[in-house]
Amino acid sequence: MAKFSLQHVYESQQFDLELLNIVFKTADDMKSDLLAKPRQYADILKDKIMASLFYEPSTRTRFSFESAMARLGGSILTTENAKEFSSASKGETLYDSTSVMCGYADLIVMRHNEPGSAKLAAEVSSVPVINAGDGSGQHPTQALLDLYTIKDHFSTIDNLTFAMVGDLKYGRTVRSLSYLLTKYNNIKIYYVSPTVCKMDEDIKAYLTTNSVEWEEVSSLEKVLPLVDCVYMTRIQKERFHDLEDYENAAGKYILDMEKVNLMQEKSIIMHPLPRVDEISKEVDKDHRAQYFNQANNGLYVRMALLYLLLGNHDT
Amino acid sequence: MAKFSLQHVYESQQFDLELLNIVFKTADDMKSDLLAKPRQYADILKDKIMASLFYEPSTRTRFSFESAMARLGGSILTTENAKEFSSASKGETLYDSTSVMCGYADLIVMRHNEPGSAKLAAEVSSVPVINAGDGSGQHPTQALLDLYTIKDHFSTIDNLTFAMVGDLKYGRTVRSLSYLLTKYNNIKIYYVSPTVCKMDEDIKAYLTTNSVEWEEVSSLEKVLPLVDCVYMTRIQKERFHDLEDYENAAGKYILDMEKVNLMQEKSIIMHPLPRVDEISKEVDKDHRAQYFNQANNGLYVRMALLYLLLGNHDT
Amino acid sequence: MAKFSLQHVYESQQFDLELLNIVFKTADDMKSDLLAKPRQYADILKDKIMASLFYEPSTRTRFSFESAMARLGGSILTTENAKEFSSASKGETLYDSTSVMCGYADLIVMRHNEPGSAKLAAEVSSVPVINAGDGSGQHPTQALLDLYTIKDHFSTIDNLTFAMVGDLKYGRTVRSLSYLLTKYNNIKIYYVSPTVCKMDEDIKAYLTTNSVEWEEVSSLEKVLPLVDCVYMTRIQKERFHDLEDYENAAGKYILDMEKVNLMQEKSIIMHPLPRVDEISKEVDKDHRAQYFNQANNGLYVRMALLYLLLGNHDT
Repeated sequence: MAKFSLQHVYESQQFDLELLNIVFKTADDMKSDLLAKPRQYADILKDKIMASLFYEPSTRTRFSFESAMARLGGSILTTENAKEFSSASKGETLYDSTSVMCGYADLIVMRHNEPGSAKLAAEVSSVPVINAGDGSGQHPTQALLDLYTIKDHFSTIDNLTFAMVGDLKYGRTVRSLSYLLTKYNNIKIYYVSPTVCKMDEDIKAYLTTNSVEWEEVSSLEKVLPLVDCVYMTRIQKERFHDLEDYENAAGKYILDMEKVNLMQEKSIIMHPLPRVDEISKEVDKDHRAQYFNQANNGLYVRMALLYLLLGNHDT
Repeated sequence: MAKFSLQHVYESQQFDLELLNIVFKTADDMKSDLLAKPRQYADILKDKIMASLFYEPSTRTRFSFESAMARLGGSILTTENAKEFSSASKGETLYDSTSVMCGYADLIVMRHNEPGSAKLAAEVSSVPVINAGDGSGQHPTQALLDLYTIKDHFSTIDNLTFAMVGDLKYGRTVRSLSYLLTKYNNIKIYYVSPTVCKMDEDIKAYLTTNSVEWEEVSSLEKVLPLVDCVYMTRIQKERFHDLEDYENAAGKYILDMEKVNLMQEKSIIMHPLPRVDEISKEVDKDHRAQYFNQANNGLYVRMALLYLLLGNHDT
Repeated sequence: MAKFSLQHVYESQQFDLELLNIVFKTADDMKSDLLAKPRQYADILKDKIMASLFYEPSTRTRFSFESAMARLGGSILTTENAKEFSSASKGETLYDSTSVMCGYADLIVMRHNEPGSAKLAAEVSSVPVINAGDGSGQHPTQALLDLYTIKDHFSTIDNLTFAMVGDLKYGRTVRSLSYLLTKYNNIKIYYVSPTVCKMDEDIKAYLTTNSVEWEEVSSLEKVLPLVDCVYMTRIQKERFHDLEDYENAAGKYILDMEKVNLMQEKSIIMHPLPRVDEISKEVDKDHRAQYFNQANNGLYVRMALLYLLLGNHDT
């Protein structure tokens, strides 16, 4: 297989098809390894240290990375609220913090409220930096695990049709996923959202340039029978000026069993989590519900990235 | 020995005499192991991950579990304030959180402010859940370590006489300990408390049904010469309407050396900690003071539970 | 080599020249070991547990200790805000907390806001305690890494000339470093500070008694050409009654390239970090800038201390 050429992972745009395939192949290896006894990769990062530098808390994402590191035998330094607890509160720059931290760890996983902060840290750091979300910016490992879940389920990504539903304007997951889907052939995306949170023009123009078909629709019911994958997101109340508008919108885009029954049997339902009530609990037991499996896939994708960025190995 | 049949540990009522004996026998093994060189159990959970999901902080309990996991060679994911730092603050249900977390860890230790939450998590989780305290509900590992301390000291629990002192109404430790003492023969309990925080009727009725003798008394001095074990708890100021009532009550139930000298030489003093001033510091050096030893026993009991819930072994 | 005789590390005054040499020699060993493959010390603390008990947050110092422990193969229990999250908030004494914690760990690293707290904990604890900063009191491992950085760079400490700049009254690092420099021969220190934050008389008297030459000057420019090492510290605005006074002072003691060019080529610039703006970013690339290297040396010095306090070995 080709060499994994990245030193850092800070944005989805770093990945071409070849790199995606390396990550997915490695994630498959990691998944198999966790089932095997004895495990081939159990000690592979034994002498490595990962630092979780979370300037804003996200227990789920942090645990996903830390579980991945532990599964590979590595050690973990962790902070769940560095903004409040670190020298950042004394006015220290991210440049200085990163310069010091990269002396203590072999890899830094950073979550930060400022867009672009992970890329800035990567420029300073002598060790690999992985972006675990930088505010309204990027969350590339979420995009990778979304795509991996699709590929894992359908074996291919080419020729699939998607509905992305909810808050498409502020949700970074649907933006990144749309972007990465341009790497594949014969994709169609339906964007289903209230008017106030439609997908931005930049992504739609990019899709058009890259021959991905897209269409904006307001009725979820109409597209459900047409798609292979429904990607739900949370609609945030605070985006609406008018409470009645919000209640209309939110109600329209709640996925319950009545709506799920409009879907094809072979289709899947995804959600980046946490959900509030945009997918009814009754849906959890339906075989099309893949969102908990999707969260679980985060483990394999993050094991893959840690291994690829830290392992001494040929791929 | 019989098989340890529990998948989860969420309440004291799960334990019968046989299960208690398995836990105590294993705790003894763990205690011996920590003294041995080389240690038989040092790597036994090497490939396992424990997640400490603390929705409310408790550094002592968390460290006790994490130390137990580290002593068995396992890895740890930790959060000390999940309520504030996790998706719970975004409205995610415990059901969803648990469904995700059980993909990242092999065992979950949960502390939560809502009674019943650990049992709820256990119903959802694909991995073992241990309740590390759920609000005014249960704290079963505290009850187990209390009982282990008594058994460790006296070799038996049958035929012992207890005084439980202080806040018996709101203190979950004395409730659980009373409950578990019904498994043993010829037990007598004196409940010593101010009127406003007397033991509730449910426990007293349960004791009577199960042939445990009990008696409510207001004078600590009178019972001290009669008992094998004095179990002290903190009286909380906020339970009292009248400050003078509080001061009378609190003063009456402070264990100082003058009172300790009324006890038999062979008796012991216990306390779940933290204490404020209900046991005078001068008592710490007395040979009857067992509360720091009791805290330390938490390590062996938790090692035992982690091993029994996670180990691949026949008992 | 002589035996490392300390059980705990709570203040700089515990170190004589022989102990300093043991620490520095061991730190050199640790530095070499981290470059070696296979590593001699990688598993040397494998069965040991370090507890980071940080009553006030300091991510940098905490990560430095935890990285040191991980590099030696040990396990870590960690709390980043024990003041808020532990029983301290319920009124528990440090005596009780330490008595319990030393049952869960083999070594305690403590940061606390109260001067003297680490020494108090050391008196109670059955396991080694390292002071990671106790308020306005001591931060002995910072003093050791400062001295190690100087020795590492110049091979010797005898015969060197220093400028200590900024807040000399409230900065514990310059106080501790001054104290430790009395162990060496033919030292000269220039104290460069605004009038409101001059070095206290106790240290100056101690230097005089111990034959260390010192001089107070107000012009940074005048001393820069004369010294081997410039030790910068942050001047805190809140020390000044008059804003204009502050601005004059702060401006006067900012080290930019214009001032660095007054220094000798062989000299070095140190800073305990975090900095705000007292060293211009342009200086970072100059070969004399040693402050990030200094932070990194914290790792080796702390590995050395953990090893010396915990390892079963002859030195």
